[in-house]
Amino acid sequence: MSKLVVLGGSFGGLTAAFELKRFLGKKADVTVVSDDERFVFLPSLPWLIMGWRRPEDITLKVSGILKPKGINFVPEAAQQIDADASKVITSKGRELLYDFLVISTGPHLAFDEIPGLGPDKGHTACTFTLDHALKTKETWKQVLENPGPVVLGSSQMVSCFGPSYELAFEMDADLRRRRMRHKVPLLYLTSEPYLGHMGVGGLGNSKTFMEHEFAERDIKPLVSQAIQEVVPGEIRLKDGSKIPFKLAMIAPPFKGVSAVRPLGNARGFIPVDKNCRHTKHKNIFAIGVTMAIAPPEVTPVPTGVPKTGYMTVKMAKTAAATIASDITGKMPPLTDELGVVCIMDMGKTAAIMKAYPVLPPRQSSYMKKAIWAKWMKVQFEKYFLWKMRRGLSILP
Amino acid sequence: MSKLVVLGGSFGGLTAAFELKRFLGKKADVTVVSDDERFVFLPSLPWLIMGWRRPEDITLKVSGILKPKGINFVPEAAQQIDADASKVITSKGRELLYDFLVISTGPHLAFDEIPGLGPDKGHTACTFTLDHALKTKETWKQVLENPGPVVLGSSQMVSCFGPSYELAFEMDADLRRRRMRHKVPLLYLTSEPYLGHMGVGGLGNSKTFMEHEFAERDIKPLVSQAIQEVVPGEIRLKDGSKIPFKLAMIAPPFKGVSAVRPLGNARGFIPVDKNCRHTKHKNIFAIGVTMAIAPPEVTPVPTGVPKTGYMTVKMAKTAAATIASDITGKMPPLTDELGVVCIMDMGKTAAIMKAYPVLPPRQSSYMKKAIWAKWMKVQFEKYFLWKMRRGLSILP
Amino acid sequence: MSKLVVLGGSFGGLTAAFELKRFLGKKADVTVVSDDERFVFLPSLPWLIMGWRRPEDITLKVSGILKPKGINFVPEAAQQIDADASKVITSKGRELLYDFLVISTGPHLAFDEIPGLGPDKGHTACTFTLDHALKTKETWKQVLENPGPVVLGSSQMVSCFGPSYELAFEMDADLRRRRMRHKVPLLYLTSEPYLGHMGVGGLGNSKTFMEHEFAERDIKPLVSQAIQEVVPGEIRLKDGSKIPFKLAMIAPPFKGVSAVRPLGNARGFIPVDKNCRHTKHKNIFAIGVTMAIAPPEVTPVPTGVPKTGYMTVKMAKTAAATIASDITGKMPPLTDELGVVCIMDMGKTAAIMKAYPVLPPRQSSYMKKAIWAKWMKVQFEKYFLWKMRRGLSILP
Repeated sequence: MSKLVVLGGSFGGLTAAFELKRFLGKKADVTVVSDDERFVFLPSLPWLIMGWRRPEDITLKVSGILKPKGINFVPEAAQQIDADASKVITSKGRELLYDFLVISTGPHLAFDEIPGLGPDKGHTACTFTLDHALKTKETWKQVLENPGPVVLGSSQMVSCFGPSYELAFEMDADLRRRRMRHKVPLLYLTSEPYLGHMGVGGLGNSKTFMEHEFAERDIKPLVSQAIQEVVPGEIRLKDGSKIPFKLAMIAPPFKGVSAVRPLGNARGFIPVDKNCRHTKHKNIFAIGVTMAIAPPEVTPVPTGVPKTGYMTVKMAKTAAATIASDITGKMPPLTDELGVVCIMDMGKTAAIMKAYPVLPPRQSSYMKKAIWAKWMKVQFEKYFLWKMRRGLSILP
Repeated sequence: MSKLVVLGGSFGGLTAAFELKRFLGKKADVTVVSDDERFVFLPSLPWLIMGWRRPEDITLKVSGILKPKGINFVPEAAQQIDADASKVITSKGRELLYDFLVISTGPHLAFDEIPGLGPDKGHTACTFTLDHALKTKETWKQVLENPGPVVLGSSQMVSCFGPSYELAFEMDADLRRRRMRHKVPLLYLTSEPYLGHMGVGGLGNSKTFMEHEFAERDIKPLVSQAIQEVVPGEIRLKDGSKIPFKLAMIAPPFKGVSAVRPLGNARGFIPVDKNCRHTKHKNIFAIGVTMAIAPPEVTPVPTGVPKTGYMTVKMAKTAAATIASDITGKMPPLTDELGVVCIMDMGKTAAIMKAYPVLPPRQSSYMKKAIWAKWMKVQFEKYFLWKMRRGLSILP
Repeated sequence: MSKLVVLGGSFGGLTAAFELKRFLGKKADVTVVSDDERFVFLPSLPWLIMGWRRPEDITLKVSGILKPKGINFVPEAAQQIDADASKVITSKGRELLYDFLVISTGPHLAFDEIPGLGPDKGHTACTFTLDHALKTKETWKQVLENPGPVVLGSSQMVSCFGPSYELAFEMDADLRRRRMRHKVPLLYLTSEPYLGHMGVGGLGNSKTFMEHEFAERDIKPLVSQAIQEVVPGEIRLKDGSKIPFKLAMIAPPFKGVSAVRPLGNARGFIPVDKNCRHTKHKNIFAIGVTMAIAPPEVTPVPTGVPKTGYMTVKMAKTAAATIASDITGKMPPLTDELGVVCIMDMGKTAAIMKAYPVLPPRQSSYMKKAIWAKWMKVQFEKYFLWKMRRGLSILP
C-alpha cells in the first residue's frame, strides 16, 4: 500500500486527497496534514467582511469530511520536508514517510517585507484568511460609523488581485445603498501596471472594462505603485507620496511557506512540470499558489501570476491522476495547458472571466458583466460546499 | 422692518430676492442692486451665438419683474461694501444700509490677466455676457462666409467649462448641416487636465464620453494648457506652441468683482459656511460664482469649480431661508450637500449630467446622451423664463 | 489624333485608359505601358497569403482586356520621362511620344532604406505584390507547422496600413479556428503614433475601435516605432529594443518609382493640382500612390497618406476627364475634395470606413464593424474583376 501525504487542507489539498482515494482506493494510505481544522471557502471572505456571510456559512470541519472517505488527518503544521528521505516532519515532531507527496500549502503572507503592513504587527487589513477577514470586518464597521478614506489593493510581489477588486465594487455598492458613498473616498492602489492587469497581462478588454467601471463608480485608481512603509493611518509609497486611510486592505507580498521554501525558487515557489511534478524530486508534486509560474511579462513593479481556486482544483486532479498512474503503472494523463474561469463579484452585479490558456497569447479570453454571473457566484458557493462535504471534486 | 440688500440681478440675486419676500412678506424691505436692467438667461447664449435665439427671446426687464412683487430695484453697480457699518455704496454714491446682505455678483472676467485675451481690448471672443455673445455671433457669421480654424475652450483659472463644450458640439452640428465641416478645423483648448474634467474631477465616465464624442466628430482636444498671450489670429501657449484661429472663444480667468473682492480670498471669492453665510461677517451671505469652493484636486494647470445655474438657485434658497430664520428667530434650515443637474447641448442631441454631491467622492453621478435631454433643455428655457416673469423660483 | 500614354497597368492605369478611350473614342491613340502583364486585385493579397485565394482567382491578363477596347499595350517598364520633349523611353529603348501622359506607377518599395528589410535581400515578408504575397504564404504555412511569434505592421515612411491590420485580424481568426492561437503571439508594430491612425490622423473613433478589437483578440500593439535594421528572426528598433519573429510582415518605406522620381518631390511623389495635373508640366497627370499628398499632421515617426484603390480610381477618372476636356476644348470637370470608402477585413467579420474628405477636418467620417461589410468585401472582389474584364470603370 502506497503512503501518500498531502500538505494543506484547502482547495488543492482536499481535492488531491479525494482524487487519490478515488483513483487508488485501498491501494493508498492517504494522509492530509494541515494546522487548520477548518476548510474555509476563501472566495467568500470579501462577503464576510461586508457582513453578508457568517463564518459558519463558509467553513467546514476538515476531519469530519476526510474520515468517512477513509483519509487520515494530521492537525499539525508541516515543519520540514526531507526530500531525500521522503519524509515530512510536523511542528509537533511527528515524522511522516511518504511514497508520494502533494504540496498545497498556499501562500506565506510576507507582511514583514513592508514595514507597518498587515493586521497583526502592522496597520493594514487583509482578506486572505478567516481571522484576518473577521478583523477587517470590524474595521469596516467602524468606517461605516465614522466615515473616511478607504484604500484597497495590492503591494508589490502580490499574485492575487481579485478580492481587492471585488471589495472595491462591494464597498461602493454597500455605501451607495446606505446613501453615504460621498463620505468614503475609495482608492484602488496596486502594483499592477494598469487596471485589469491582474498579474496575467490583462484578459480581453479587462483594462478598458475596469477603467470604465471604476470611473462610473468614482473609485480612484493608482497603478504601478510600490509601498515603502505603512504608518498608522498612512501608506507611504516608494515615489514619496502619502496616502491617508481609515481602512486599508492591502494584499501583502506572497512567498512559499517556510517548510516548502527549500524546495522552491528564491521566493519559495516550487518549480514543476506540466503534470505538477517537482522538476527534481520526482515523487513530490506541488499545486496551487505553492507552484511557480513565470509571469507573462515583466511589470515595472513586480507582480505574480494568480492561481485561482479553479486552477488549483485542476492542478490537484492532474497531480492525483499522475501519481495514480505512477503507482498503477499506467500512462500518465495527457495534460493540456491550464485555463481559468472565474467570477468577479461587483456588488449588485458580477463579471465572468474566462481565459485559455491562463497566460497570453491565448486561444480564447473573455470578460463580461452579467447579472446571471452574480446568481452563478452565489449558487456556486453553496454547490461547492455541498460537494466538499461529500468528498467530491467540483470538476469532472 | 428688516433691510435686506441683494447685490446682483441674475439667477442668484433674483431668486434670493423672491425667496426673502416670500418668507418674510411685509417684515422685509428687499432691494436688488444691479447695473444691468436685463435678466439674461445665460445658458442660452451659445444658441444666440449660433443664431438660434434672438436677444429678446432670452431677456427679461428686471424692474418689471421686481416691482409687482414689492421689491425695490436700484439700477446701479455696487462700488464698495462697508461690512463693519453694514453699508453698500453704489457707483453713483448712493448709500444702502442693510441688516442682511446677499452677494450674487457673479464673476469678474479677468481678461487683463492674459495679454491679448478678450473681445474688448483683445482678440478672442467670449460667451459669458449678452454683449460678448452678440459680438461672437458676428465673428461666427464671418467664419461661415470665409471658413478657417476655430478654437474653443478655457484659459487657466476658469471655473465654467460647459458653454465651450456646447459650442464645440453646436458648431460641429451646424457646419455639417451646411456641408462645410471640412473647411473649419475645430480645436478644443483647455486648462482641464483631461477632457470631461470640467473643474470637478470628471463626473462618472465623462472623460471617456467626451473623448469618444470628440473623436467621432473630429474635434481635436488639447488639454492641460495655459495661455501665454494672444495676438491677432494666434494663441500662444506657455509651452511655446502657436495656434492659429479665425475665431477663438476662450473663457477668461474668473475673479470676484471688485466691490466684493476685499471680503474674499486671493481671487476675491467669498468664503462661506454651509448656509452660504460669510465665515466672518455673519450678516453677509454669498451665493453662486461669488462663493469660494475649493477644487477637489490640484490640477497641473489651475482650474476652478463651476457653479451652475442650478447650484446658484439652490444656494439662493438656502441663503434666503437662513436669513428668514435669523429674523423670525426660527431654526435655520438643515442644509444638505450641494448636488447638481445640468444638460449639455450637443447640437442635434444633448447629454444629461447629475452629481451628488457636486465634488467627488460622490453618492451618485451620471452622464448620459439622450435625445429627450435635448427636448428638456429647449423646454426648460421657456419654463424658466415664464417662472421668472412671475417672480417664482424654479426649484421647489 | 492625340497620343495618350498611360504608365502603369493596375487600378489607376487601366481605369485611366478605359476612361480616355470612352471619352475620346477614335480621337485618341491610347497606349498603356507596364512591365507586368497581369492585373492583380491587390486588396485580395492578404487572402492569398492566408490560403483563401489562388493567384488565378485575382489576376487578369492586361493585354487581353485592352485589345478589345482598341488600347495599345507595351509590356515594358518605363525607364525615363523626358518631360520637355514629351517623350517616354522604355527599358527596351523604345521611345513613345505623347500629347498627354498619365502616371500611375504606384510605389517603389524602398526595402533598401532599412538594412535587412524585405523578402528579396532581407528577412521580412511583404504583402504588396503577388510574388511577395506568394512567398509570404509559404512562410505562413511554416508558422502553422512550427508555431512562433508573428510580427505585422509598418516601418517608417509607409503610406499603406490597411493590409497589416487585415492580416492581424485574419491570422488571429485563422489561428483560433485551428485552436492554436496561444502558440502564436501576434504583435502589431507600426510607425503610426497610435492604433487606427492609418496615416490620416484616424477616422472617427478608429483609435478606440482598434484598441478595443486588438485587446479583445490579444494582438499586442507597439506604436510610434522606427526600425533600425532586421537580422534573421529579429527586428531591431531605433529605441534599442529587439523583437523576435518567425514571420514578420513589415510594410517598407514608399517612394516614387525611379522613372518618375525626377518629376517629383524628395521621395519621388509627384505634386499635382486638384485635377491631378502636374504643377509644372501641364500635359502630365499623376494618380494613385505616385501622387504627393501632404500628411494632415506631423507624426513623431514619419508616416504617409494612403491612397486606396477607391481613391486611385476616382483620380483616374478626374485625370481622364480633364485630358478629354483639354483635347475637345470643353470646360474641365469641377473637382470635389477626394473622399474614401473602404472595407477592412477582420477575419470572421469586417469594418466599413468612410471619410469625406480623406484628411481631417472632415464633413463626415465613420467606422463600423458589420457582418454585411464582410459579405460586401467578398462580393466586391468578384464584381470588380468582372467589370475590369469588360473594360469598365467600377465607379459611375
